[in-house]
Amino acid sequence: MKKKELRIGLIGCGFMGRTHSNGYKRVGDFFPDLAYKPILKAVCSRSEDKVIAFAEQWGYESYETDWKKLISRDDIDAVDICTPNNMHMEIAVAAAAAGKMVLCEKPLSRNLEEGAQMVKAVETSQVKNTVWYNYRRLPAVTLAKQLVESGKLGKIFHYRTNFLQDWTINENLPQGGRAFWRMDAEAAGSGVTGDLLAHCIDLAMWLNGGIKDVSAMTEIFVKQRLREETGKMEDVKIDDACIFHCHFDNGSLGLFESTRYARGHKALFTFEINGEKGSLRWDLHDLNKLEYFNNADESIVKGWRSIHVTDGDQPYMDKWWVPGLSIGYEHSFVHQVADFLKSIATGEECHPTFRDAYETQKVCEAVLLSAKNKCWADTDVDWNN
Amino acid sequence: MKKKELRIGLIGCGFMGRTHSNGYKRVGDFFPDLAYKPILKAVCSRSEDKVIAFAEQWGYESYETDWKKLISRDDIDAVDICTPNNMHMEIAVAAAAAGKMVLCEKPLSRNLEEGAQMVKAVETSQVKNTVWYNYRRLPAVTLAKQLVESGKLGKIFHYRTNFLQDWTINENLPQGGRAFWRMDAEAAGSGVTGDLLAHCIDLAMWLNGGIKDVSAMTEIFVKQRLREETGKMEDVKIDDACIFHCHFDNGSLGLFESTRYARGHKALFTFEINGEKGSLRWDLHDLNKLEYFNNADESIVKGWRSIHVTDGDQPYMDKWWVPGLSIGYEHSFVHQVADFLKSIATGEECHPTFRDAYETQKVCEAVLLSAKNKCWADTDVDWNN
Amino acid sequence: MKKKELRIGLIGCGFMGRTHSNGYKRVGDFFPDLAYKPILKAVCSRSEDKVIAFAEQWGYESYETDWKKLISRDDIDAVDICTPNNMHMEIAVAAAAAGKMVLCEKPLSRNLEEGAQMVKAVETSQVKNTVWYNYRRLPAVTLAKQLVESGKLGKIFHYRTNFLQDWTINENLPQGGRAFWRMDAEAAGSGVTGDLLAHCIDLAMWLNGGIKDVSAMTEIFVKQRLREETGKMEDVKIDDACIFHCHFDNGSLGLFESTRYARGHKALFTFEINGEKGSLRWDLHDLNKLEYFNNADESIVKGWRSIHVTDGDQPYMDKWWVPGLSIGYEHSFVHQVADFLKSIATGEECHPTFRDAYETQKVCEAVLLSAKNKCWADTDVDWNN
Amino acid sequence: MKKKELRIGLIGCGFMGRTHSNGYKRVGDFFPDLAYKPILKAVCSRSEDKVIAFAEQWGYESYETDWKKLISRDDIDAVDICTPNNMHMEIAVAAAAAGKMVLCEKPLSRNLEEGAQMVKAVETSQVKNTVWYNYRRLPAVTLAKQLVESGKLGKIFHYRTNFLQDWTINENLPQGGRAFWRMDAEAAGSGVTGDLLAHCIDLAMWLNGGIKDVSAMTEIFVKQRLREETGKMEDVKIDDACIFHCHFDNGSLGLFESTRYARGHKALFTFEINGEKGSLRWDLHDLNKLEYFNNADESIVKGWRSIHVTDGDQPYMDKWWVPGLSIGYEHSFVHQVADFLKSIATGEECHPTFRDAYETQKVCEAVLLSAKNKCWADTDVDWNN
Repeated sequence: MKKKELRIGLIGCGFMGRTHSNGYKRVGDFFPDLAYKPILKAVCSRSEDKVIAFAEQWGYESYETDWKKLISRDDIDAVDICTPNNMHMEIAVAAAAAGKMVLCEKPLSRNLEEGAQMVKAVETSQVKNTVWYNYRRLPAVTLAKQLVESGKLGKIFHYRTNFLQDWTINENLPQGGRAFWRMDAEAAGSGVTGDLLAHCIDLAMWLNGGIKDVSAMTEIFVKQRLREETGKMEDVKIDDACIFHCHFDNGSLGLFESTRYARGHKALFTFEINGEKGSLRWDLHDLNKLEYFNNADESIVKGWRSIHVTDGDQPYMDKWWVPGLSIGYEHSFVHQVADFLKSIATGEECHPTFRDAYETQKVCEAVLLSAKNKCWADTDVDWNN
Repeated sequence: MKKKELRIGLIGCGFMGRTHSNGYKRVGDFFPDLAYKPILKAVCSRSEDKVIAFAEQWGYESYETDWKKLISRDDIDAVDICTPNNMHMEIAVAAAAAGKMVLCEKPLSRNLEEGAQMVKAVETSQVKNTVWYNYRRLPAVTLAKQLVESGKLGKIFHYRTNFLQDWTINENLPQGGRAFWRMDAEAAGSGVTGDLLAHCIDLAMWLNGGIKDVSAMTEIFVKQRLREETGKMEDVKIDDACIFHCHFDNGSLGLFESTRYARGHKALFTFEINGEKGSLRWDLHDLNKLEYFNNADESIVKGWRSIHVTDGDQPYMDKWWVPGLSIGYEHSFVHQVADFLKSIATGEECHPTFRDAYETQKVCEAVLLSAKNKCWADTDVDWNN
Repeated sequence: MKKKELRIGLIGCGFMGRTHSNGYKRVGDFFPDLAYKPILKAVCSRSEDKVIAFAEQWGYESYETDWKKLISRDDIDAVDICTPNNMHMEIAVAAAAAGKMVLCEKPLSRNLEEGAQMVKAVETSQVKNTVWYNYRRLPAVTLAKQLVESGKLGKIFHYRTNFLQDWTINENLPQGGRAFWRMDAEAAGSGVTGDLLAHCIDLAMWLNGGIKDVSAMTEIFVKQRLREETGKMEDVKIDDACIFHCHFDNGSLGLFESTRYARGHKALFTFEINGEKGSLRWDLHDLNKLEYFNNADESIVKGWRSIHVTDGDQPYMDKWWVPGLSIGYEHSFVHQVADFLKSIATGEECHPTFRDAYETQKVCEAVLLSAKNKCWADTDVDWNN
Repeated sequence: MKKKELRIGLIGCGFMGRTHSNGYKRVGDFFPDLAYKPILKAVCSRSEDKVIAFAEQWGYESYETDWKKLISRDDIDAVDICTPNNMHMEIAVAAAAAGKMVLCEKPLSRNLEEGAQMVKAVETSQVKNTVWYNYRRLPAVTLAKQLVESGKLGKIFHYRTNFLQDWTINENLPQGGRAFWRMDAEAAGSGVTGDLLAHCIDLAMWLNGGIKDVSAMTEIFVKQRLREETGKMEDVKIDDACIFHCHFDNGSLGLFESTRYARGHKALFTFEINGEKGSLRWDLHDLNKLEYFNNADESIVKGWRSIHVTDGDQPYMDKWWVPGLSIGYEHSFVHQVADFLKSIATGEECHPTFRDAYETQKVCEAVLLSAKNKCWADTDVDWNN
């Protein structure tokens, strides 16, 4: 079967540039039935040395140092945005205007207003679009979605989730800079809210529906950091921690926590959902496992089940190895590429779309507003009308 | 060595009557060096049948059906209050006035105002007093306290805790009644806030210091229940779930959740504390275990330690069996009795005192106020001036 | 209800004297419906100081320093043997001859020949007897027995179990002596085989039936130790580690390991049983938990269940607290006392009887023989014909 | 940097053909500094349809249906053998004779005699060779090796390991055939011994040194199965389960178990090693985790550490993502390819070599001999002199 080509132009060659590139390169080996295959046509970064090395390592056919040039090329079908957050909007809007499909790394944008313009751009241009909330496509998480949708949990009462790290517990980390742009409010928009909490929110709304209102709290533990460009100490403006509780539209209660100050946790991302009939929980540190409590089990042998999600009848796992053999973090990106390619063939949307991600952005905005004003905030603010 | 007697008058013979009685009966076997020994002098309950059976089963020397008579007896040194919460204040105040020591089951009271009167009573009468926040005295929890105090965690950033149950997910449970007084706002004061969250708060403040302000949310999932006495459906007034976040005085952030609607959890009580140098976590379902992360461990072998707290050099464990052999829930009460008896001998206070528990009550009050008003609430309201 | 008395004479006041005494003292509080109640009539130990202190601490009415005197007393109904193993036979035979019930700490005896005499003695005298293989009566273990008997596991293929400790990894521990008689072959009969492996074997045969033949290996890691009485280094004669595999009568394969040289394990006692329809596993370090795999569960949500065995419909747990609240090691002895008292009332046997324990002894004998001769050994050797 | 090419000829395109191909294709993306890069020159399988599809899916430049032709091609540098075990010897000997490097899937051979010829072949021809005991190169396992070698465990007392599956608990599985050659003694040589236990032995000897003698037991639970080619029931000749204990050369005791009849375990591969100073354990189901007990830790906080082996200073992990993000099973093959390529550049051996794997084969042979003869067997039998 001759496959159609999807010619990728990747912008940004940091951590996410690597995870996406790996996704494009692996997908054909494991999803042989796709009608499309990605072609690594070009990669773009301002630093020529860096982009040349990246292109060579990953096998991109060409490179650019100006993203506008990349977008203007005729041999690019889809633009993949892996830059710091402050570039998302400008690039996405331009790419959409140029008629390119757009794949954007999460969070969608630094703030809601930018997000609104991005949604408008892709919807106006009617270009295919998706945002890399990759965790949806870990098999255990996708299985959780199936179980929720099948009604196995019944009416939902509680949803709790957190994303805990500890890598910034260090007064000597700088305020921004190339390797540390996540610590710069100008580049990142926010701290853990956009970086970590947005993942929690995306999964939560996918699994449990919309969020109505939130009550939040943020904290900056280290108040000043050195800006290396200026050699001066400056006030830190990103949130080191962000916590909120909320009401979901379905009446359940949510509890969210994200921080980079939880000593001992490298990337502890967990969720738990409690329903009338059953419960589920998951933890990124042991990502192939889903825990499930079924209240209909016989009373004396009722308990949380530890499901090792590696069987052929579980999501995506028919593509990989044999039961019991784990896959890892990076596979979520391979799956998202596969689903994106499938969606081109079928003409369906590839969720989360920019609009889906905009809903997440609305919650982030409400969270930061709530924390700032020390009050509850509704999530129905909308720049996108 | 001839021991001195501490003659106990127990009021209430439900679940807590049993745990306390067991504490009194076991303590001498395992703490042979105490100067005092408890004597089960009298037990009191309104139902004569029930109290006779209880006295016989547990070996109380006598019984009463009127608590006022019990308090007036000369052969009672200490009154132990195991009644529903709505009786705590009246009994405690009367007992203190009669010059009895008072041991009161938690929560101290239905509300802060009652609590204030109770503190005033025991402090005016200068009678020894304690509240049964028993979990402090599980060895793993006491060890956590020692580690925090030793400075092993350094500056604290986060404290998270929850107490999750699922026993009231049932529309047919009644609104109150003898076996279900915890579901009756009149008898209990509140729902999970006083029942479960109060335990979380007591441990949190013991381990991590005072709480400054809170932002809370409560929920009643089943809105009406049958009151069996009247045969009518009535609005439920207790909280089925209560969630809050807060600032501690030391600058760390707190996250608290309690519910009776978390399917799959019988009594999941956990806490985790993250500091600059290390972290701790604990779970009541596996109560002999404490987990500890030490950031000073050599980098390549750094990880959470699972400490089985059953060694002779760990709190209380020299009194029990040999390393590796677990103790259970009930032992926390034995330890509290032992410490109470010790405190009589030394003349020191036995924490948590009524005043300590009043601090917990202040947080509960602020939590309920915050939830009601949908705003942050300070905890410095004080009826006790 | 007026209870009948069972007057206990306890011989030996070490670790096991404490666990048994606690069992006698607790049972009435938690099993109020028993027809019999134990009376702590007398305790016996050669050291008068020690026995006086013990009697006072635990509330024994009297004491003896000569076990023969204790046995001869008319006011003793049951003799409980908590001495080192080398005294089991002589005392049990004498007690049976005196018409006393006999409760003997495990292992039954130092060797099979002694065991044969003990069985003969109690069966000839027709006195009620039991051996304290207490772990059968932890609720999670008893539940395992129920599940196996109910057929939930189907045909059994595998049974694996171990008992791992690390307390003798120390060249300076002495060869025997009062506190260390377990390290003296003369007093103990064997090392880990009688001390730890016997527990594994008792549970294995209870859960999975008879053992046909064994292939074993033993090891002495520290070859010589100081005998304090003589001040001389002597060859160590007890086994520090004992491993064997075997065939069960039902065709399944067994794997057993016991050692005192497994660094990091205080008392890791585990078993796992794999059947056609399901599997079970258990671990003493988290003793309230039983894990269960049910192959009939729906394929995509199949997994090991973690059952917290603390519900009222699970074995023994209606007697204790509320769901989710753990009990500990010592409770197994309370349950054995309760069942022993029940068996007096019903006239049934209280398993494990001496004869049951003799079957365990046969396996131990075969194991040591196999290890010595480096060959397979049948377990059908029998001194008891 | 211009990389040198290593032109691969892969024989066999089943499960292992996929894992190896993936290894070759991924290595350059993640190990950019290697001097060599693999070229997928040709793949070979008897079925032309199958090999064409495989070549297309994985990007092999050409294909063959006769392995002898593949070996004779000048444009092949290295032959990778992924056939059923009965073809290993013939192909390896021919490939070595043709001067090709040889990479052979494990186990080396069906039996020791074949293995001897293979070792002789590669050593005579002096061709680079390796056997795909891939688990050595999971980061947690490699870290275990480093810790053992650093002396952190001290003198070793115990090594226990098992590999448990449940996929053949089904009387209707056939006796051999293309998809089930592992169940055919002629094709596989043995059952679980070569398939699973060989992995256990390879790791054990790598981590803990040579094995001196063994006492083993095997079992065939389903005695007859249908041979589809003949339509007849035939006696099953492969071992469904194989258990042994042993002495290591260093004086420690080993315990090994492998089975396909452990209900509930898809691929539970574990090892634990106990030394005087510390212990380690690992489990394939949660493969990024290594557990470590350090006896030198402060007494009151001593416990097993759960190490999430995903940091840049842990083996191989500087090549992948960021701390906390897991990799999977397949990465072990990428690492082995990387190390093989490195070894070409340095001229060092890439362990395990054929000779290393021959040592494992000797233990397998002794194990099967011991089981057959029901006696201990030494491992020093050697066909290779």
